[in-house]
Amino acid sequence: MRTQVVIIGSGPSGLLLGQLLTRAGIDNIILDRVGKDYILGRVRAGVLEQGTVDLVRRTDADQRLSHEGLVHDGFSIAFGGRDHRIDLAGLTGKHVTIYGQTEITRDLMAIREAAGTKTLYDVKDVALHGFDTNSPFVTYTRSGVAGRIDCDIIAGCDGFHGISRRSIPAGAIRTFERAYPFGWLGLLAEVPPVSEELVYANHERGFALCSMRSMTRSRYYLQVPADERVEGWSDDRFWDELRSRLPRHHAEAVVTGPSFEKSIAPLRSFVAEPLRFGRLILVGDAAHIVPPTGAKGLNLAASDVHYLFEGLRDFFLDKSSAGIDAYSGRALARVWKAVRFSWWMTTLLHRFPDSSDFERRIQDAELDYLTHSQAAATALAENYVGLPY
Amino acid sequence: MRTQVVIIGSGPSGLLLGQLLTRAGIDNIILDRVGKDYILGRVRAGVLEQGTVDLVRRTDADQRLSHEGLVHDGFSIAFGGRDHRIDLAGLTGKHVTIYGQTEITRDLMAIREAAGTKTLYDVKDVALHGFDTNSPFVTYTRSGVAGRIDCDIIAGCDGFHGISRRSIPAGAIRTFERAYPFGWLGLLAEVPPVSEELVYANHERGFALCSMRSMTRSRYYLQVPADERVEGWSDDRFWDELRSRLPRHHAEAVVTGPSFEKSIAPLRSFVAEPLRFGRLILVGDAAHIVPPTGAKGLNLAASDVHYLFEGLRDFFLDKSSAGIDAYSGRALARVWKAVRFSWWMTTLLHRFPDSSDFERRIQDAELDYLTHSQAAATALAENYVGLPY
Repeated sequence: MRTQVVIIGSGPSGLLLGQLLTRAGIDNIILDRVGKDYILGRVRAGVLEQGTVDLVRRTDADQRLSHEGLVHDGFSIAFGGRDHRIDLAGLTGKHVTIYGQTEITRDLMAIREAAGTKTLYDVKDVALHGFDTNSPFVTYTRSGVAGRIDCDIIAGCDGFHGISRRSIPAGAIRTFERAYPFGWLGLLAEVPPVSEELVYANHERGFALCSMRSMTRSRYYLQVPADERVEGWSDDRFWDELRSRLPRHHAEAVVTGPSFEKSIAPLRSFVAEPLRFGRLILVGDAAHIVPPTGAKGLNLAASDVHYLFEGLRDFFLDKSSAGIDAYSGRALARVWKAVRFSWWMTTLLHRFPDSSDFERRIQDAELDYLTHSQAAATALAENYVGLPY
Repeated sequence: MRTQVVIIGSGPSGLLLGQLLTRAGIDNIILDRVGKDYILGRVRAGVLEQGTVDLVRRTDADQRLSHEGLVHDGFSIAFGGRDHRIDLAGLTGKHVTIYGQTEITRDLMAIREAAGTKTLYDVKDVALHGFDTNSPFVTYTRSGVAGRIDCDIIAGCDGFHGISRRSIPAGAIRTFERAYPFGWLGLLAEVPPVSEELVYANHERGFALCSMRSMTRSRYYLQVPADERVEGWSDDRFWDELRSRLPRHHAEAVVTGPSFEKSIAPLRSFVAEPLRFGRLILVGDAAHIVPPTGAKGLNLAASDVHYLFEGLRDFFLDKSSAGIDAYSGRALARVWKAVRFSWWMTTLLHRFPDSSDFERRIQDAELDYLTHSQAAATALAENYVGLPY
């Protein structure tokens, strides 16, 4: 088989890139090591920057997003028993849209199928070859049969644990990493959210986040130690702990119900540089991970797709490599700002087990400053809604 | 002897408080363990917030300050070989004034002498008594003769190493501290400054600051290891190192000359809480120290004086203790914001010997963001010119 772009990974970044390429008349095939149902079973966050929504719109996969997405003009930071609203719309003129990443994936899969563009699921033994030449190719097995796809470009959209980044020789890549001494215990339940907007709570017992997928489905998170096990958390224990970390008016408004998903995710910052190695180009989580506090993971993948699509369009349609040559630098400049923001917001809102009394007071002073300074609140807000591409 | 307020320490905060009290008709006596010439020989910084200038103006000791002070509408942050100007006036509508702390002290001493208010210099064995009662008093010896002053209030304006804070029982005070793994090597020379405005340089060899006392007297600083000894630094070595840390256009503009002062100061953040213990009240460096990066030390002492003077005026003229009861809380709220700002600016601009690659990139990303975001630059600027009292 031959195609112009092989995309490794059928998550939202691979699907988004694929559909933009298809619409521009650029051939592409997506390979994924797992199946559609497995991918759609993964629970992911869903706070979308306007730039991400705009990109989905360009694929025509935005009907449900436009109809069901919740537009949020602000969110709250709760500390000291009180809410402090960050007026995103008032401070920046922009908003965010709440729409689950899983739903975007579903919508993009549907439009890709309707367009008849090829996706190979349940593909094993994927290996990337010759990406330091002009004739890269990908080999794999599927249902026991070996396959090979020759191409011009391989786009690595297969996440942190994928094969793409691991295919790059160690000497050609530089990584930057920070682990946090805690994780997020998340619970999903078919109950109305405690508030119409997200509530980020800094509390001495630890961070908590009140989020939602819709006005009837809530997603709550609790900061837990990094080595915590989900088995220790009954629903009742979760609800009690959540209430204890919220200001009273929120705690009293929590509607409880049986969870249908509960899991613990570690928090990590990670960046690999550069994003391009000859004809292999990394996108999204394959190259960078942020803690979920700033809701930047999917949005960073989308901005990578934006820059890479521009580069590939130039490459295939205008026969210019300027765009893909510039991709790594352009994408990383924005990535690092979001990595900084996610690190900062994580540091601001969580309790660190090893923090000194001085550091705790600095955190208090920063929260006090942030909620009393228009400039500081605007800096937070402009990062949260997304810095310009 | 009897007076209403005994002020321990004849630095700028003690003199400023004393003169405000004198003008309000409130008796006060200043005690200092050293002499006038010694105090005036200390080299100190001099970037004044407008609130500090306004406070000096209320003492009528502002003639020279108004005439000789340099009004600065901005400063530069240099990194990556380039200058990035922070337009203080454009971003905040305010400016800072460059005028040496030693000169303020000289002006305040002169006006205090002209008013005939008593100052006792070279006082030894100072001890504070009975400040947990309504009848505190201070004992001392001077030229071998024991003395005692009875008073209503003792104001501790005697700096970090002074007797005031150390007189408080350990169990009644809580301290917060952070030491930094570097110091500032400062050099004073009778040469014109490299730039009309201050230049803060982040460089891989370490931080550097180009500052001035006047347009003919420059004050330069270099980040050096905490255990560095000044003996190892000839003037030539200093000038060479300074040039190596500045963007080329500044490096080439450095005018060198013999130093007439060269010293190393450690960097430290420190806060003691609360600021009041019965009739003993702490002011400025006696209760809190900030690294000099944000130029906040003297300005914080001035804001403490502002809040305390209001409290003492209520106490003596209106017979209300509401103002001195509120002093600690009001002053500390502002202190902590400035402590946070000074810590942040220090972290942003210095090289930390133990920082990870991740942390260095976060620093780069923050500098990049700061110099491209009006909101972030405004947050920096509003702290630098001084948050409102």
